[in-house]
Amino acid sequence: MAPQQPRSGERASRPGIEVINRAVDLLAAFTQGPGSVLTLAELARRTGLPKPTLHRLLAALEVQGLVDRTASGYQLGIRLFELGEHVPRKHKLREAALPFMQDLFEASHDTVHLAVLDGTDVVYLERIHGHRALNVASRVGGRLPAHCTGVGKALLAYNPEAALRVMAMPLPPRTAYTITSHQVLAEELQRIRQTGISYDREENSLGITCVAAPIVVDGHAVGAVSVTSAPGSDVERYASAVRTAALGIRRSLGRTPILHPTPPRARASKKEPT
Amino acid sequence: MAPQQPRSGERASRPGIEVINRAVDLLAAFTQGPGSVLTLAELARRTGLPKPTLHRLLAALEVQGLVDRTASGYQLGIRLFELGEHVPRKHKLREAALPFMQDLFEASHDTVHLAVLDGTDVVYLERIHGHRALNVASRVGGRLPAHCTGVGKALLAYNPEAALRVMAMPLPPRTAYTITSHQVLAEELQRIRQTGISYDREENSLGITCVAAPIVVDGHAVGAVSVTSAPGSDVERYASAVRTAALGIRRSLGRTPILHPTPPRARASKKEPT
Repeated sequence: MAPQQPRSGERASRPGIEVINRAVDLLAAFTQGPGSVLTLAELARRTGLPKPTLHRLLAALEVQGLVDRTASGYQLGIRLFELGEHVPRKHKLREAALPFMQDLFEASHDTVHLAVLDGTDVVYLERIHGHRALNVASRVGGRLPAHCTGVGKALLAYNPEAALRVMAMPLPPRTAYTITSHQVLAEELQRIRQTGISYDREENSLGITCVAAPIVVDGHAVGAVSVTSAPGSDVERYASAVRTAALGIRRSLGRTPILHPTPPRARASKKEPT
Repeated sequence: MAPQQPRSGERASRPGIEVINRAVDLLAAFTQGPGSVLTLAELARRTGLPKPTLHRLLAALEVQGLVDRTASGYQLGIRLFELGEHVPRKHKLREAALPFMQDLFEASHDTVHLAVLDGTDVVYLERIHGHRALNVASRVGGRLPAHCTGVGKALLAYNPEAALRVMAMPLPPRTAYTITSHQVLAEELQRIRQTGISYDREENSLGITCVAAPIVVDGHAVGAVSVTSAPGSDVERYASAVRTAALGIRRSLGRTPILHPTPPRARASKKEPT
């Protein structure tokens, strides 16, 4: 889907709207690459914006607490975290899921994930782990392609529209075990619908296996929960516990509706600030 | 401290900067009051902005994924959560603290908190709980006045500048047990510095007690961790576990510097969009 075009009546307001695009691109620049404290020069390199423009944007974002100035540069500010925690798709599902995730952690002492679908990616809402944390590619707020993760395949199995979008795209391999054939992936999604369980067998990271289950409300997966296991460990032994947790979360969600965005979101390109 | 005044050279860019202020006020409006899905009329009421302006701002924020349109109104979008998770003061401390928080949870099965100071408030970075969650006023990303919480007093005891700012303000009571005398609070902070332990004895919520310890780096508390207990339970029994956890988190932070904003942040008024 093409990015949303400005309607003719909005032409007069384009400069204002461009400021929003630039400000969000600037915030996103902090997440694109190493380091969390960035100099003006590095931000100019990442955003392609001239330094005087950046300076004005940073001053406005700093007043709002979305950016902090430190002795060695700029960083994202705590107020941005506060706003992000009010996102209802995150907050409601995480609150319902956490006690069941704690149960899974106490049983396994392995890393426990909660994720939702966004387009054809999964976004990790929560990641619980102890001292024995695996070197897993995920992070809270991070995203991965859905087709190569346990939670992602569990979500696709119960989101046919998203699954069809994945079927229309190439399936880039992340390891030698990633499913790259559309037919194999379709068969896998059918199997997940039959069993209610999804496995990731080193499909995203070598040495990392995982067992996941979808949280299904009215036939539609609103999230998925998983246990990730150490290399060589038998992840299948957690299958029924993960499935039970997903059913418990679904019950706990109860009457709290989780509303999904109506149209597939048209998003401004991250590469090219407009 | 007065809100930052635009420098004379910035006058030409004021319209652009105002768009950022309005956009952030609009995002904040979703967090001010009940409900997470808001109509245009409700947003107009909360922000005081005219509907055509709101419409343009919402369209721009929707393209960026910071706002979603649903069947019954607008809600904050998952991309805002993703950006917020990259805030380094949150991400680094939470990653270091989580395994120790899981230890405290397994020992107590009570609610475990991690918080930082922002001005004279505490902001909760993490809140771990099981099925037996107390009706605690905190939420992840929520804020409370520092003087009436266990984590807040632990943080103030090792942040003399913030403590002095609190001493210059009235101390509004939240329960009959809130410390409202500056002298009593100062004595309490001294006691916390002597013992390394801070208690909240129903000072924020009736029936809720808590034991907290500061995470001290170079004499300065970068965060605090706590266990909150059920009414009537003996919270003192977790004092040494909480203190040990705080020392473990401090060790685990190791060489990861947590940079603090240089000036006390001047923030645009939340009441009055400028």
